[in-house]
Amino acid sequence: MSTAEMSYEPLTPVSFLRRAAVVYGDRLAVVDGDQRFTYAELQERAHRLAGALVPLAEGRPVAVLAPNTHVMLEAHYGVPLAGVPLLALNLRLSAGELAYIVDHAEAGVLVHDAELGDLARAVANELAARGRPLHLVAAGGPDDAYEALLAGAPPTAVPVTDERGLLSLNYTSGTTGKPKGVMYHHRGAYLQALAMVMHTRMDVSSAFLWTLPMFHCNGWCFTWAVTAAGATHVCLRRVEPAEIWRLAREAGVTHFNAAPTVLISLANHPDAAPFDHPVRVATGGAPPSPALLSRLDALGVEVTHLYGLTETFGPAVVCDWRPEWDALDAPARARLKARQGVGNVVSGELRVIGRDGADVPADATTIGEVALRGNNVMAGYLKDPEATRAAAPDGWFRTGDLAVLHPDGYVELRDRAKDVIISGGENIASVEVEQVIAEHPAVLEVAVVGVPDDHWGEVPAAYVTLRPGHEVAPEEITEWVRGRLARFKAPKRVVFGELPKTSTGKIQKFVLRDQAREQAREQAPS
Amino acid sequence: MSTAEMSYEPLTPVSFLRRAAVVYGDRLAVVDGDQRFTYAELQERAHRLAGALVPLAEGRPVAVLAPNTHVMLEAHYGVPLAGVPLLALNLRLSAGELAYIVDHAEAGVLVHDAELGDLARAVANELAARGRPLHLVAAGGPDDAYEALLAGAPPTAVPVTDERGLLSLNYTSGTTGKPKGVMYHHRGAYLQALAMVMHTRMDVSSAFLWTLPMFHCNGWCFTWAVTAAGATHVCLRRVEPAEIWRLAREAGVTHFNAAPTVLISLANHPDAAPFDHPVRVATGGAPPSPALLSRLDALGVEVTHLYGLTETFGPAVVCDWRPEWDALDAPARARLKARQGVGNVVSGELRVIGRDGADVPADATTIGEVALRGNNVMAGYLKDPEATRAAAPDGWFRTGDLAVLHPDGYVELRDRAKDVIISGGENIASVEVEQVIAEHPAVLEVAVVGVPDDHWGEVPAAYVTLRPGHEVAPEEITEWVRGRLARFKAPKRVVFGELPKTSTGKIQKFVLRDQAREQAREQAPS
Repeated sequence: MSTAEMSYEPLTPVSFLRRAAVVYGDRLAVVDGDQRFTYAELQERAHRLAGALVPLAEGRPVAVLAPNTHVMLEAHYGVPLAGVPLLALNLRLSAGELAYIVDHAEAGVLVHDAELGDLARAVANELAARGRPLHLVAAGGPDDAYEALLAGAPPTAVPVTDERGLLSLNYTSGTTGKPKGVMYHHRGAYLQALAMVMHTRMDVSSAFLWTLPMFHCNGWCFTWAVTAAGATHVCLRRVEPAEIWRLAREAGVTHFNAAPTVLISLANHPDAAPFDHPVRVATGGAPPSPALLSRLDALGVEVTHLYGLTETFGPAVVCDWRPEWDALDAPARARLKARQGVGNVVSGELRVIGRDGADVPADATTIGEVALRGNNVMAGYLKDPEATRAAAPDGWFRTGDLAVLHPDGYVELRDRAKDVIISGGENIASVEVEQVIAEHPAVLEVAVVGVPDDHWGEVPAAYVTLRPGHEVAPEEITEWVRGRLARFKAPKRVVFGELPKTSTGKIQKFVLRDQAREQAREQAPS
Repeated sequence: MSTAEMSYEPLTPVSFLRRAAVVYGDRLAVVDGDQRFTYAELQERAHRLAGALVPLAEGRPVAVLAPNTHVMLEAHYGVPLAGVPLLALNLRLSAGELAYIVDHAEAGVLVHDAELGDLARAVANELAARGRPLHLVAAGGPDDAYEALLAGAPPTAVPVTDERGLLSLNYTSGTTGKPKGVMYHHRGAYLQALAMVMHTRMDVSSAFLWTLPMFHCNGWCFTWAVTAAGATHVCLRRVEPAEIWRLAREAGVTHFNAAPTVLISLANHPDAAPFDHPVRVATGGAPPSPALLSRLDALGVEVTHLYGLTETFGPAVVCDWRPEWDALDAPARARLKARQGVGNVVSGELRVIGRDGADVPADATTIGEVALRGNNVMAGYLKDPEATRAAAPDGWFRTGDLAVLHPDGYVELRDRAKDVIISGGENIASVEVEQVIAEHPAVLEVAVVGVPDDHWGEVPAAYVTLRPGHEVAPEEITEWVRGRLARFKAPKRVVFGELPKTSTGKIQKFVLRDQAREQAREQAPS
């Protein structure tokens, strides 16, 4: 090496494992069922995985289809250490959807959990039909091909030469059109991981429970952040409240991430009881309701509200809590906590851009689109320069989310651009109506969408899950809203039942919207 | 801007102020005597300082000569925001030394504290004599030129275009030869600041007391780290224990940095009393002694031991504490805490290189030179490519410090290369002898150096400051060491008195060594 190299090293989140293997070598890195790995062991396994993948991957991405297991975690190190990008797959997708993604990404190897063998083989068959061979590696089960591969491989670590190079691909769930391959770069994930450590205050004594899927934005970069902190990864195959409560106690969990819907089911589970140590939860996807916050508070859980997209490495925005807010009453605290907030410590500038292209005034009223730029924004969509340009025509990545800017600089989402309900020419932010309904004592959770209406164009419809043992008439919900918001914002229809959700627990409004349109058509005079 | 710019922003620690002005705009950024500034005000002042400096600096570095005041802090933002490097000067230097540095750095402006007017004018006169005009700007005093300059300047923020570009110059104190100008780059300071926040666990509710000089490695990058955390900078003109104790209580200080010598005088001051809230101290320059650690523990102070050099943005190495060590007894904990440790979270690899150029074994015994590389290593010495090459001939920056590597991967310094005492062909690590003497109940602090000896080549001499009210004979110290270490390591001479120190409280061994040589000559038969 030359003298100049003393002061430059490409930023990559994989380097956190190198450090952890030295500093926390004999400390617990991974808990997965009965299996335990120290950081020295995790590094050894990641290096062997890299050694196995170098000849198999042939320079192409390696796909992984697994729940939150040690295998999925190891892939977050072993695949980049093989010098190729990681493609973590959403295990809720169909074989057809997965085959499209694997094909689009040009992955030639698929490591899969043995439990997902049928799905993996279906993907391989679909690809074979297209003349694309896919090498399957099953992890777990009676003859564990993954373990055999590791046992026979030479420990390898291909150095990262370009920190702006491709680290991983994360396909957007895409409610319309084909999923797009969001390109994560090493530099962005490194910085985002450091930001996550800082904002959630993880340290070497922390234990992080994997409730959030690792395949979702690489687990908001916590796959690397937990290692940077030297904390313990507590793996979790399925998001089941009873299992989460058990692990939370037995493994001394201090941190986890989950959408409000997951937190609702946790907080209302029979096993829910206050923790005997501080627990910090980061939540996103939707603002936590006041009722949920007060319930979590009683359980000793401190909630941080984060916001971001696949394109921003997960949470690029954080509702950074100011100590003086602690003195406010619970409703005021909940209102503040419901804001998405401000750029995180590594984010670039955050803007709210009005229709005229100018920043909206910080008046808590004028709605614009949230836009941001910085090192934790994707490099672009894979093989889709047109969509990339459309996402950031002027260097500002447009989120598609509508928000107001508060006078203190905090952003609060009003809606997804496509979730705004336009009724009689007036905009109704569905989230505003949802917040009011969520305050009703009988309501567990709620989603409001627009349904077609001959007179008003659209009207709000509310889909509500009630708390166990509660009953309430639809009219009572409508009246509840009327007493608290402008009358035209009250739902014209209230439907009780379960809400459709994504793999990360986000409510799928497009499903409700389709359902509402269907029902509207059925009820219309033929 | 183009689409590609959505995902790249040059890393610069100045960006932490931009964020703090949004997120913590109305929170207290600076306490300086009776003055208070919020983060919005600090940004406004930094932007005005930048506006004032753009025409004055003419693209050259801006020098600042001030104690730890809001002016010195503002310069850490305002000078880079003017697009020029900051040269923070050591106010303990003579006019001649300062003139050399200002001249070498080619600074054309010197902002100085009004109290240091005589020194600043002497520097300007020296430079005038060399035909180099120096523009002085006095801050404070009856006609405050600095405030007048800010009041009349347009708020300005010159964007950073190259993250590897020059952010600041820090001249090494250089015990031999001329001081060298260590070049800090934006990227290194940004990452080092994030590391300091993580390792000292600062957050928005923290208050950082400026005991460490800001001119020393830019205050180990805490000038930027405190802002990144949104914490409060509590300024301090002079390191006086009584004043520190007063501020620590009145301003609710939670964090500060100081050399062990400063901590010794603090812990032994009549005002010392346990804090009513947790206080974290980072210390470096020398390992904290067991006696000091137990005294600080009783005061409720948690100590983190850090290690680094001017060339490594301050602490590139941290004695990262493992929770399981809490269960050890006090002497064992102190022994672990005395280690310098491991690379910090943003550091590159840390090596201990033996005479043969290979890594020493991790046996806690074999001594080698500490070497490191990574993003928190300097870009080089200003206008001195030869010294730069010599410092890192192969891309590994050589610290000049000798250490052993423990089996668990932690580094422990044995000595500065030049501080090793070679007695009868045996190496004596002066720090080992110092640690033993420091355990003597009458000893406040101690330094051991080698003095010439006709028979042995060199022998150890101990310079000792006793605790107030204690008296002890020199022979008792020698016996104390003999009972605990190999006999040849016991000091042949013990001298009681004050120890000479640098501006950061580091003991100046070269002064003691000169003194010892002088005395040896006087005592020698002429």
